[in-house]
Amino acid sequence: MNFASDNIAGAAPEIMAALLRANEGSAVSYGGDEITARLKTRFSTFFERDVDVYPVVTGTAANALALAAIAPPYGAVLCHELSHIHLDECGAPEMFSGGTKLLALGGADAKLDPAAVQAVLDAYPAGVVHHVQPAALSLTQSTELGTVYSLAEIGRLSELARARGLKLHMDGARFANALVHLGVTPAEATWKAGIDIMSFGATKNGALAAEAVVVFDPEIARDLSFRRKRAGHLLSKMRFVSAQLEAYLDEGLWRRLATHANAMTARLAEGLAAAGIVLSVHPQANEVFPRLPAATIARLREAGAIFHPWPMAGDSKDARTVRLVTSFQTTEEEISRFLAVLGC
Amino acid sequence: MNFASDNIAGAAPEIMAALLRANEGSAVSYGGDEITARLKTRFSTFFERDVDVYPVVTGTAANALALAAIAPPYGAVLCHELSHIHLDECGAPEMFSGGTKLLALGGADAKLDPAAVQAVLDAYPAGVVHHVQPAALSLTQSTELGTVYSLAEIGRLSELARARGLKLHMDGARFANALVHLGVTPAEATWKAGIDIMSFGATKNGALAAEAVVVFDPEIARDLSFRRKRAGHLLSKMRFVSAQLEAYLDEGLWRRLATHANAMTARLAEGLAAAGIVLSVHPQANEVFPRLPAATIARLREAGAIFHPWPMAGDSKDARTVRLVTSFQTTEEEISRFLAVLGC
Amino acid sequence: MNFASDNIAGAAPEIMAALLRANEGSAVSYGGDEITARLKTRFSTFFERDVDVYPVVTGTAANALALAAIAPPYGAVLCHELSHIHLDECGAPEMFSGGTKLLALGGADAKLDPAAVQAVLDAYPAGVVHHVQPAALSLTQSTELGTVYSLAEIGRLSELARARGLKLHMDGARFANALVHLGVTPAEATWKAGIDIMSFGATKNGALAAEAVVVFDPEIARDLSFRRKRAGHLLSKMRFVSAQLEAYLDEGLWRRLATHANAMTARLAEGLAAAGIVLSVHPQANEVFPRLPAATIARLREAGAIFHPWPMAGDSKDARTVRLVTSFQTTEEEISRFLAVLGC
Amino acid sequence: MNFASDNIAGAAPEIMAALLRANEGSAVSYGGDEITARLKTRFSTFFERDVDVYPVVTGTAANALALAAIAPPYGAVLCHELSHIHLDECGAPEMFSGGTKLLALGGADAKLDPAAVQAVLDAYPAGVVHHVQPAALSLTQSTELGTVYSLAEIGRLSELARARGLKLHMDGARFANALVHLGVTPAEATWKAGIDIMSFGATKNGALAAEAVVVFDPEIARDLSFRRKRAGHLLSKMRFVSAQLEAYLDEGLWRRLATHANAMTARLAEGLAAAGIVLSVHPQANEVFPRLPAATIARLREAGAIFHPWPMAGDSKDARTVRLVTSFQTTEEEISRFLAVLGC
Repeated sequence: MNFASDNIAGAAPEIMAALLRANEGSAVSYGGDEITARLKTRFSTFFERDVDVYPVVTGTAANALALAAIAPPYGAVLCHELSHIHLDECGAPEMFSGGTKLLALGGADAKLDPAAVQAVLDAYPAGVVHHVQPAALSLTQSTELGTVYSLAEIGRLSELARARGLKLHMDGARFANALVHLGVTPAEATWKAGIDIMSFGATKNGALAAEAVVVFDPEIARDLSFRRKRAGHLLSKMRFVSAQLEAYLDEGLWRRLATHANAMTARLAEGLAAAGIVLSVHPQANEVFPRLPAATIARLREAGAIFHPWPMAGDSKDARTVRLVTSFQTTEEEISRFLAVLGC
Repeated sequence: MNFASDNIAGAAPEIMAALLRANEGSAVSYGGDEITARLKTRFSTFFERDVDVYPVVTGTAANALALAAIAPPYGAVLCHELSHIHLDECGAPEMFSGGTKLLALGGADAKLDPAAVQAVLDAYPAGVVHHVQPAALSLTQSTELGTVYSLAEIGRLSELARARGLKLHMDGARFANALVHLGVTPAEATWKAGIDIMSFGATKNGALAAEAVVVFDPEIARDLSFRRKRAGHLLSKMRFVSAQLEAYLDEGLWRRLATHANAMTARLAEGLAAAGIVLSVHPQANEVFPRLPAATIARLREAGAIFHPWPMAGDSKDARTVRLVTSFQTTEEEISRFLAVLGC
Repeated sequence: MNFASDNIAGAAPEIMAALLRANEGSAVSYGGDEITARLKTRFSTFFERDVDVYPVVTGTAANALALAAIAPPYGAVLCHELSHIHLDECGAPEMFSGGTKLLALGGADAKLDPAAVQAVLDAYPAGVVHHVQPAALSLTQSTELGTVYSLAEIGRLSELARARGLKLHMDGARFANALVHLGVTPAEATWKAGIDIMSFGATKNGALAAEAVVVFDPEIARDLSFRRKRAGHLLSKMRFVSAQLEAYLDEGLWRRLATHANAMTARLAEGLAAAGIVLSVHPQANEVFPRLPAATIARLREAGAIFHPWPMAGDSKDARTVRLVTSFQTTEEEISRFLAVLGC
Repeated sequence: MNFASDNIAGAAPEIMAALLRANEGSAVSYGGDEITARLKTRFSTFFERDVDVYPVVTGTAANALALAAIAPPYGAVLCHELSHIHLDECGAPEMFSGGTKLLALGGADAKLDPAAVQAVLDAYPAGVVHHVQPAALSLTQSTELGTVYSLAEIGRLSELARARGLKLHMDGARFANALVHLGVTPAEATWKAGIDIMSFGATKNGALAAEAVVVFDPEIARDLSFRRKRAGHLLSKMRFVSAQLEAYLDEGLWRRLATHANAMTARLAEGLAAAGIVLSVHPQANEVFPRLPAATIARLREAGAIFHPWPMAGDSKDARTVRLVTSFQTTEEEISRFLAVLGC
């Protein structure tokens, strides 16, 4: 009953099998191998458009590289105050970009509020030398609270951003979970909605360590290969990362895994609701945030459940919000045991 | 017959087996897992001293993190002009440190010449505000030319460095190959000779992607955990990197693999010498640099041999130096075939 | 009637005279001159403590250097959301520090709210590798809204900061105006209240271009000389900056000039109040923020008054807040003319 | 008899007069003033071309800003090993650019050797991700050894640079001295010879503190205003820097001052030669490097002469090279006294 995160899971068997296959024979190093060569086509097919793909091993690296490629050092990136890039990367975007400022905004359900975005754009007029210059907007899909932007919501943000010449970045550490929820194509969920560059995550959804910066408009990020190398993220035996990504796209593995993870969260949410527990946010992907009585939390922990507290407005000493994350490895049996402790 | 590099090899079976074992069950993410927890003890035993260990996935990351931890932005790192940190990392040390300058020096056999080191120290007096301040000296063991510093040579450099308060860094991407050649203990080869911090390499010698910054004096690098995180090098499923390192140290795997790689180079060198080929550098680890007649190069390539040209002083149109690297995977049969083409 | 800022003024005659005197004869360059040598003693006397002084030519440089000296690249600086370092320096602190994050907090009257400070400290626990590490707190004295922190207020912030090991920085671009308002000694207003390092401003109060980083605990900023040089802020003819600072401290020039500037604002505020104008903030130094009817604004501009709009909560289409800044050069006649337009 | 540097001089009377004039009345701050507005036209006339001008107060700032504007963080700047940017700016170019590497080359008389430039370009092929990417070439005019590049020499370097897409930067801290020596127009000496951007120096030749980045192709450096601001080099009372530059260009002041400085060096050189002293470099601007017997050095110092040792190949214990710099303030009487001590 480990709901601490989706990255406490190991790797999916299909990914491990791909690793073992990739280990046969020798291969050109630093991404000159055949598996890596195939990725561009695989991702271009996946996204129905010619894209560039830069595999890396962490979401932090993907995010920081993508943002450094689209925002100058004197620039600013608009993001949500709960975003991973702002809160949980120990300043990686600032390091990779040479000091670009993240302007953290509010917004319900961990989603950027268009009005807040417009207010910041108004407060930082173009060309005023005293202010950092808004250069990019970054949104997380699915969000840090397990919610999912609708295509219309992304479109609205894209419109505001584009009107000021900003580029749009998507932190897709849990992109598969969002896709499954939305039921749209990868193309519709990204560049057709206005996304210029994304961090494509696979690690949380079944890979060992595999993410990729995907660039929809190659013009905007011509220098990513140099930036990746100098960040120490060009692996000499790159085939082992590429093989994970290839297997992840193969035969819809990403979809099967994410569908399962989302379903487990849905089941949890259902059970929690049935037990009369308040959900602090409406779950749409693979995370649910119930507000639990202190006694319940204690009972769950005693029973072996693992999860993190997640303080939210509305919490009291007697009832606190916690975060429960499900993954491709979560079993129905774990869910049942968890709900059983709740008395469902 | 692929002698292009030791990183064209895959992973050793023992490493792969460790990966598969590490995949069982869930584990605390971001290095909070049990395998990672064991590493500190394993490396401390290996080095006969209490050390700190920061696993990463590339040698470039290990080098850049280690140097950023011991040299301030206004500092300078003395290194050889052929060193990987200076030539082959696209400015990673400069990025991680915020602009520290690498002062690249000459020296035979890719080894730092103590006289050149002293000359630079004299040219950059302490406290003169116009100059960058020498803060660290970095040496590569084994070197980029497959030579190995003797303990006395390291000791001499350490003495010079210490007299000016510089820290000593060792780029140990091929540390195992050097250890096997020297026949000394890891402790003797490092901190007992004056090394403060090292990049401990496993990738070139059998891992998929596993290196570590090893700190012999934990005081000097208290902030490495933050620096690693913000460089995007703290993997969420860190157990998969740690498992490789653990297996690498286990039952002397590192030694077996490096012994084989070195032996293959020795065999190559012997055969080349027997064929009357000039070796541009005396091989001591797993690289050999023969100067080959143009016709021989063509014949070898035709036979399927893969290797890189390595221009050196003394080369002519008719005879050019090439680099041949052997690895744990190189077979005696490959060597024999290669030498057979040479007519041995 | 130019109330746009205090930096639209030129230099005080005493400062100009000092410049002319400093121009006699030759002098050792890069701060090796006699005037610069005297500064350490002059400032130590002024602050009743042995301090280090690093003259520069802009407040932005002073702020960015001071913060880079006390906050690591993976660190965070707590500051007010209206602070100059956050809003008006185009990312200078981030550039000088190599990416340190500014955490911008709210607080009435442009003053940091201790509760908000504590909340951020709680949200960024020490040692959690995912978060930037709070390293410094920066407050502006007098503030960007012309208010002045009381010694008790600074003391409270200092207490919170110190409990977590943070250093305290004061942006003293208008320090003289605050001192005059507080009526305390420079020592009481700074290190005795817990300030570790400050940006000491003279430009806005009568110098051409002269600020200084003043370090109260020299241990904390041993490397400032290198940081200043590498930021291009070590002037070769440094005597010309030092001469301004010397003259500024001489015979209380700073006090005379600031007393006048504050008095002019007091007079303005009095007249505005008499005219029934709402002041959006209670003025304590040399800035006043009246909310003026649109028609009045138009009439003032027509009469030649120069000032900037300063949007504030409570403004409407009919009445908007503007900022009026007085300086050592503002004349009573200008005030009278301005008030006359208002119909006073 | 102070020949330590040209920056030990104060400011020329014409510059001081301009400062005093600039102090009249109030002015828009941060470069919005009328004097600054005139600079673009003044410099465009001076250079017979539409240029952009960014005044700053140090040569280090001008150099670092100019290079950051034309070289990316993963780029490299080719420069001479004696260049100020490499040796004497404590890493400012690396700081401003976010880690761009300076590749320091040899070359007689402190001039870049085209063969060495070509060798580096060959060693760093375009697009190879492991290497930093050559992006700019920087030359100093007049050089750190008081020599002057001919137009043909600059043209040859420009040709090599352009063939690889590099931009050309000129460090013109002593540009006036070079212009006077060459006897060509400012246009011929710069953009007509291939220079894209320059650091235009006035401080060493009569200003208090006034330099400018001059951009010949405004396209290449659109972001300089933001870079300058964030480096703390946008002065609030910018009119005082601009006034110096205006006066410097006015009625050929720059030429009169530099002509005098050069003439004083010529006179020194003549006298030294007459006394049988070896000049280590042939003087062309305002610096001369005689190799003096130890006894002579002692005698000169005793007589009050001030100068710096300048170790050069060929020096011995008995005879060492020193640097003598003359400025607009150097008097014939000083020269005569100096030569008299030599026994001329």
